[in-house]
Amino acid sequence: MSNPATYVFNHTMIRVKDPQASLKFYQDVLGMKLITKSVNEAGSFTLYFLAYIDKVPESEEEKKKLAFSIPGVLELTHNHGTESDPQFQGYASGNKEPGKGFGHICVAVDNIEQACERFEQEGVTFVKKLKDGKMHNIAFIADPDGYWVEIITNPIHGSGPI
Amino acid sequence: MSNPATYVFNHTMIRVKDPQASLKFYQDVLGMKLITKSVNEAGSFTLYFLAYIDKVPESEEEKKKLAFSIPGVLELTHNHGTESDPQFQGYASGNKEPGKGFGHICVAVDNIEQACERFEQEGVTFVKKLKDGKMHNIAFIADPDGYWVEIITNPIHGSGPI
Repeated sequence: MSNPATYVFNHTMIRVKDPQASLKFYQDVLGMKLITKSVNEAGSFTLYFLAYIDKVPESEEEKKKLAFSIPGVLELTHNHGTESDPQFQGYASGNKEPGKGFGHICVAVDNIEQACERFEQEGVTFVKKLKDGKMHNIAFIADPDGYWVEIITNPIHGSGPI
Repeated sequence: MSNPATYVFNHTMIRVKDPQASLKFYQDVLGMKLITKSVNEAGSFTLYFLAYIDKVPESEEEKKKLAFSIPGVLELTHNHGTESDPQFQGYASGNKEPGKGFGHICVAVDNIEQACERFEQEGVTFVKKLKDGKMHNIAFIADPDGYWVEIITNPIHGSGPI
């Protein structure tokens, strides 16, 4: 009998317009690593699997084992052609109507003030800066498609307001 | 200087209409545990943080430390009143227009055939049964709000088609 106590919340999938822009954001700005990608020519889409890992395994078998077993994986789905289609309207962030539902993903960082400074230097769009509003312990940045990424201080090894 | 290699992809947030229905689904059907909740009376919303953990810590401080440091946390946001508001239209799953963007979350299980049998017995709605379509190694179920949850075999400790 299947035992739910052994289950793993493995990944979250979002569709992205331009994988080059998204990969740059999630790798260079947020520091995730691309574990593996899967091209489906018949379906005209490519899936990219990213996570915070120390090292990307060398063999494709080990990459797949890692990508589908650990928690905290981000799957980006790219439907081929959206990146250069002038008619493409873009994806919904989930935070306004129509299409409200999904809210955000959240990244816990070592030092939230320094992390936000880095994001500013990298030209990242802020939905809510650290000083905005009443809650000065969280920030929200936007990824290239406008999805919200919450930034918080990691309460175990981070420093800054919690 | 903030070091992105130390960052953690901590949680994914989705809005839910009826927290009792969602908590039942994510705890009883999918086996997650409720780590902590946070009621915001002024903002009229409550946040619920769930994850696959062995044991929920006793103190509120330890619960918060866990909820905001580990990967694989699911945050459910309940805007008070939606559960009993006949005008409330429900949330977008992200998988159709208007509102296409977010795709799904994914849970890796020990034995996918047995897990899907359990879901059927529990009366869960399937978006795609294991035998449907061409890919017989994945299933999609719907949570109480219609968000998609992909079910895959954990390649490390699971059995079944990968």
